Amino acid sequence: MSELRRDPIAGRWIIVDTDHPNKPEDYEHEPTIWKGQANCPFCYGNESQTPPEIIAIREPGTAANTPGWHVRVVSNKFPALQVEGDIDRRGLGIYDLSNGVGAHEVIIDSPYHTKDISDLENHEIANVITTLCNRILDLRRDKRFKYILIFKNFGPAAGASLEHPHTQLVALPMVPKNVKEELNGARNYFDFRERCIFCDIIRQELQEKERIVFENKHFLAFCPFVSRFPFEIWIIPKKHNGYFSQMPSEEVPDLALIIKEVISRVKKVFGNPAYNFMIHTSPINGDQNVEGYHWHIEFMPKLTRVAGFEWGTGFYLVPTPPEMAAKYLKEEKQG
Amino acid sequence: MSELRRDPIAGRWIIVDTDHPNKPEDYEHEPTIWKGQANCPFCYGNESQTPPEIIAIREPGTAANTPGWHVRVVSNKFPALQVEGDIDRRGLGIYDLSNGVGAHEVIIDSPYHTKDISDLENHEIANVITTLCNRILDLRRDKRFKYILIFKNFGPAAGASLEHPHTQLVALPMVPKNVKEELNGARNYFDFRERCIFCDIIRQELQEKERIVFENKHFLAFCPFVSRFPFEIWIIPKKHNGYFSQMPSEEVPDLALIIKEVISRVKKVFGNPAYNFMIHTSPINGDQNVEGYHWHIEFMPKLTRVAGFEWGTGFYLVPTPPEMAAKYLKEEKQG
Repeated sequence: MSELRRDPIAGRWIIVDTDHPNKPEDYEHEPTIWKGQANCPFCYGNESQTPPEIIAIREPGTAANTPGWHVRVVSNKFPALQVEGDIDRRGLGIYDLSNGVGAHEVIIDSPYHTKDISDLENHEIANVITTLCNRILDLRRDKRFKYILIFKNFGPAAGASLEHPHTQLVALPMVPKNVKEELNGARNYFDFRERCIFCDIIRQELQEKERIVFENKHFLAFCPFVSRFPFEIWIIPKKHNGYFSQMPSEEVPDLALIIKEVISRVKKVFGNPAYNFMIHTSPINGDQNVEGYHWHIEFMPKLTRVAGFEWGTGFYLVPTPPEMAAKYLKEEKQG
Repeated sequence: MSELRRDPIAGRWIIVDTDHPNKPEDYEHEPTIWKGQANCPFCYGNESQTPPEIIAIREPGTAANTPGWHVRVVSNKFPALQVEGDIDRRGLGIYDLSNGVGAHEVIIDSPYHTKDISDLENHEIANVITTLCNRILDLRRDKRFKYILIFKNFGPAAGASLEHPHTQLVALPMVPKNVKEELNGARNYFDFRERCIFCDIIRQELQEKERIVFENKHFLAFCPFVSRFPFEIWIIPKKHNGYFSQMPSEEVPDLALIIKEVISRVKKVFGNPAYNFMIHTSPINGDQNVEGYHWHIEFMPKLTRVAGFEWGTGFYLVPTPPEMAAKYLKEEKQG
């Protein structure tokens, strides 16, 4: 018999196959193969092929847009949204539209073409985290923006068009639908219980233990009870905080370590799978802030294809129960 | 400059690339190649390899579970949900769960292994449509079910695990999230305007004409102003009707024709792309019926990959404006 589970935050149902669960080897996923790329615009020496750098962490004495950087941020050469102009919302009969105002930046994680973020040293990952926070703190001063999403696509199967590992940032003039749903769920729970729903989830996971993948002093990584995807993992700060960009600096090394640990374990189980992760954080510049919201990272290895059932319902079919996924990911440590 | 568009029904935003739109040849999609399959369980002579047939349209005098059928319905051998038992909803700390009660059936469109639904004759497609309606009318008598979803996955890239073309039906003990969102949107619009939002959309599309792909007396096919996917097409009855299964019989031949026409045109433009379609219809057995809801089919060729931006926001990036997609699909007729 399968099991239906309901996400306590957004109210999404999933169907977990508890009867004939998939083992890791049952997934026919498309592994990510490093192919190399001549004249990669994200490699040393090719800095002129990207738009000019916005910021970078650099070796002392090196000039902008030349080699010597550790992390480098540039505008996306093919932005989904453009940074100039005022927002012009209007109707067209029954429809609504707006010009595409926003920011779309690329954070080049490191100069190494074939090092994923989990292959970097802890201090190098910490540099990426600090850079992401700094970009948010800068962009939030632009009052046109209501939300900043940070995400990573790794591997062609996860939508990455360039091989050199990078992270993306999009600043949007509205709070997106999926974020609103989470905020509403968190608000309803807080109104009802006067507690943060994410803090309650952390408490239950620490007590039950069976979905925990890894933890350290400041962070917990676990396979959520209502995963949308098999082997989905959330990384969440143990101490309540609504804003990724307001992370206390003493938490940064722990976050770097847990990101490295989580991705490395997934790679040990699945080779080098494509994956996405998204940082879920509170909106900016508006009254949509929610007391019971708690920032976190959602990490999803790309093992399955979304099909008609998912598109039609918003339900997700999860072939491996999260409890079992956590077990595979934990056992890899001993291997 | 790109354009932001907001879906008037569910409130979803999309970003349309109006500046550097993709032409059909710009999509690197995975075409569906007929490979053939020894001992296909959906081919004539292999009827014993599937669970026993629930209903079939057959040549007179042929016995159940033998050749001679035109359309055949069986239970899914690996069902996502199981039909036996009562629904047992319960809590587990902060989480909610239920046993996986539901029905999961497979409708084998025809005995032809390498004929997609658009390759069938009109009367054969009409047989499939009638069979789908009959399955709903039968299953809705089971009061445990609140929603019946019909969908098709064609091609491995769209999640099809068997090559022989088939359609799927899932009966669920709750109204799924995506359907609830559409129902809420339609209800809000009806409360405000006392009109069906889908009827208003049809009116505007017939007036503006630029997104229409094909129409006949009873149906309209158009690329929605707020498509989530490039070359997405909706097929909708021109006359208001909340229930697919209550389609007047005189509309069936027109629906068969427009399904054939739409899929054929997409195949002329893209070869044999993978695709999904879902039938969106009103819930059953509940008080969630909505006066302003209007059944329709959402057809989505699988041309792009959903990535971190979409998962993080619920926004969609659409590289070809729907107006341009409709133009490509229309021009193919003359070719």
